[in-house]
This record gives sequence, structure tokens and C-alpha cells, in this order.
Amino acid sequence: MPVRKHQGGLQHSEQDLIAVEEPLEILVNGRNLAITMRTPGNDEELVAGFLFTEGLLTAREEVQDIKASDNRVDLTLAEDSGVDLSRLQRNFYLTSSCGVCGKASLEALESIGCEVRPQKGPRVSAEVLLSLPDKLRAAQAAFERTGGIHAAGLFDTEGNLLLTREDVGRHNAVDKLVGRAFLDGRLPLENCVLMLSGRTSFELMQKSLMAGLPILAAVGAPSSLAVQVALRFGMTLIGFLRDGRFNVYSGDARING
Amino acid sequence: MPVRKHQGGLQHSEQDLIAVEEPLEILVNGRNLAITMRTPGNDEELVAGFLFTEGLLTAREEVQDIKASDNRVDLTLAEDSGVDLSRLQRNFYLTSSCGVCGKASLEALESIGCEVRPQKGPRVSAEVLLSLPDKLRAAQAAFERTGGIHAAGLFDTEGNLLLTREDVGRHNAVDKLVGRAFLDGRLPLENCVLMLSGRTSFELMQKSLMAGLPILAAVGAPSSLAVQVALRFGMTLIGFLRDGRFNVYSGDARING
Repeated sequence: MPVRKHQGGLQHSEQDLIAVEEPLEILVNGRNLAITMRTPGNDEELVAGFLFTEGLLTAREEVQDIKASDNRVDLTLAEDSGVDLSRLQRNFYLTSSCGVCGKASLEALESIGCEVRPQKGPRVSAEVLLSLPDKLRAAQAAFERTGGIHAAGLFDTEGNLLLTREDVGRHNAVDKLVGRAFLDGRLPLENCVLMLSGRTSFELMQKSLMAGLPILAAVGAPSSLAVQVALRFGMTLIGFLRDGRFNVYSGDARING
Repeated sequence: MPVRKHQGGLQHSEQDLIAVEEPLEILVNGRNLAITMRTPGNDEELVAGFLFTEGLLTAREEVQDIKASDNRVDLTLAEDSGVDLSRLQRNFYLTSSCGVCGKASLEALESIGCEVRPQKGPRVSAEVLLSLPDKLRAAQAAFERTGGIHAAGLFDTEGNLLLTREDVGRHNAVDKLVGRAFLDGRLPLENCVLMLSGRTSFELMQKSLMAGLPILAAVGAPSSLAVQVALRFGMTLIGFLRDGRFNVYSGDARING
């Protein structure tokens, strides 16, 4: 797109790359379920990951067919799937009879199937953690030029990049990544580290927990509720992972060195 | 919160500030309308701004009463307000009969009342624009220590800060700011500049347009759809406003110098 650049009292026009954002319509069994803004690409993954991390889908077999076309994904449920789409609106209210509070939010996660991570679980070294931001950045080099894309990278505990996905929405990048694993029958991701280019919120913790991830690391800061979720469910939560340093907010025992 | 800090092979524990994220329940006439995650504070503004920028509320007089208590806002509509709450879900579908596409998204904005900005409108100088990031940052000094808060600042065209709001969610910061102006009967904000600490998306353009803002400037990158909205509705959209430079994606005529 054409852009007018101003700097030091001078200005000029040039063409610049801009991150694409477009609406995606999600249809389940022919019914409009939702519209979400996202960066086009890997749309089946986005929808599968979104419905799985919201607790509506629980297994690959529940999906008979999933097809993406122009800004639209059609998902057909298996006949005996027993998936209750009305839960999408209802989920958040399940446990809010005590009034809405951080505590109710944590209980809502249990009600959609989030479980405390096993304490034994995998270990990762500080050295491997410190190497992740550069690896994630290298993998998204083509997109980095726009300056407007969030990335999610799945790594093993040796620091090998297994999968990366990108989107203007940080939750979408995680949905695409988890959706790929869901469609491939590779969940839960029990021995993996998820690395995010941005900040960590409640919503991202929910998605990581649903995917069975024990370790989440982010370039940015976590929110208070993100830390509370990590503590409650025994996840390792790392923030400010950049410039040779990081902060551990929960689950320090999984980090060697 | 206690944090374990790792750097250069060393580690130590210390207390650190973390941005607060908690759920807020929104009730209109006693009915659950939505739950949203946000940073507590200015909750009435958040709800008023959210409902206004989504096109449900159109004037201050439609609100008889609005009260915030612990993580909950109760809004009572004036008896003859004629506000149709079912529109919240429906709005996005209004114009999508042609299939969902960027074009439909732009048309949806018209259907909730967004109008093309007058071309005469206000002017702002490059010098004033370049001064905004430091002013916004100074105003949010207390929060900056968490590294996890988005800010929205309202300025006049001389660069004077009129109002600033912060939140873990960037859309919430804008809702709070627009909500304050709505509750004070100060909309539309026809002669103001909105400055954002993050990136610009479709959703943020919608909120700015609904508030009547002619000029939006952001520290981060815009998405493609944000630029399309700016071009269609005659807004001035500025990105990468930092380190003495900025890019203009639309409406360069409003910038002097």
C-alpha cells in the first residue's frame, strides 16, 4: 500500500507492506456461528483451534469435514458427535453463580476440561529458553516487515521449532497452531514449549491449557489473571523473554540452570 | 507478585508489578449482556463506550442510570430509549448477504452510523504529532512499570492532553476514553487526535469513527482493513509514530509541515 513517510522534517511516498486483516465467517452444519477478524491463511486450523480451545470440540473424530473457501470455513460435525454449539455463549456463565470474579474465571476453565499439569512433566534449560525469541523471529522473517503480525511458535524442550503460525490477532495465531495439532490428532502437546511474540492474557492461558501445554513463554508481560491461571493449573509461565533475560511467574521447577 | 528473574546465568526472586486483568459482567436492565476481561477502573466508562461504539447506544439520554460495583456494571435504560439489545449479535451480519469480505465490513460500519469525516476538519502539525508519544508515556508513568498496559490518549490539535485511559486490552482503553466523552455529552470528538500505544485494527477504527474522531495516530502498525476503513471514511491514519518519525496511511492533507 502507498504510505507517506515523515522523518526529520522531510517526507516522501513509498509502497509499504501491511499485515492483512479480513473477516472470516464460521459456519457449523450450515449455521452462522461467528465472524472473526484474522489474517487469511490456515483458516481450517483457526476454526478447529478456536472451537477446541473454547471446549466445544473435544476430539478429531467429531469433525466429519472442514473446508475453507474465500473468507469462510464450513465445518460439518460427525452425525453422532453430540457437540452442543449453544455452549459457546454459555461456557463463561457456567460457574458465575457466585458472582463474577477471578476465582469464577479459573473455575470456568475446569468446567471446559482444563486440568492441572503433572508436576513431573518436561524440563527446559535457561539456555534453550533464551534461544527461542531469535528462532521465532527468523521463522517469521517474511512477515516481520509489516511490523503488525503476532507469532506463536511450538518448540520441543531441546529448542527445535516444530510449528509456527502468525496472525494480526495473537489469539488467532495460537488457535491456528493448536488447530493444526488438533486436526493432526497430535494433542495434548505435553512435552512442548509455546512461545508467543506478545503479551499473555487469560484467553491465551486458556488456549494453552486446553492444548495440554506445560510451558508458555512470551516476549511481553503477563496479566495478573494469566499468572493466577498458571499457578492454579501448575503451568510454567515465562514473560519478558528477550535481550538475554526472562522472568518466571510460575513453575520455576521445570527450568534447569 | 513474586517473580523469579533469570539473566546471564544468574537468577534471583523479587516482587514485581503486574497489570491487573479481571472479568467484568455487563448487565442491562438486569439482563446479562456480556462478560469481558479488562483492567478494573472506570468501568462505567468502559460499558458506555462499548455499547456506544457498537452502535447500541446513540445518546446520553438513553441511559437512565449506570452503576459500577465489584467487577459488575448495571446499566438501566431510559424507558422510552428504544434501544434494541439484540442488535449486539446481529450488527455484523447486517450487510453480509453478499458474502463476508472487507467490503461488507466497511458497509457494516455505515449501517451502525459511521459517516465520512468532513474534508475541511482540523489540521495538526508534524511537530505536534511527534510530541504525542512522550506525552502519552509520561501520563501513564504509574502503569508503565508493569509493561503490560495499553494506553489511549485524547489530544487537541495543539498537542494538549485532554484525557487518557489504560487497560490490558487496547480496545478497552479506547472504550473507556470514548465512554467518558459519551457520559459527559462531549461526542463527537471532531477536533481531537486519538493516540494509541499499540497497533491499529478494524475494531479500533470502528470505535474511533463512531466517536467522530478525524485523526488517529498509533505507535504500532495498522492492519490492511484499518487502512481501508480510514480511506473509505476520510480519516487521517498514522502508524509507527515513534523515534521522531511516522507513516501516514490516509488523510495526509490534515497534516501541516
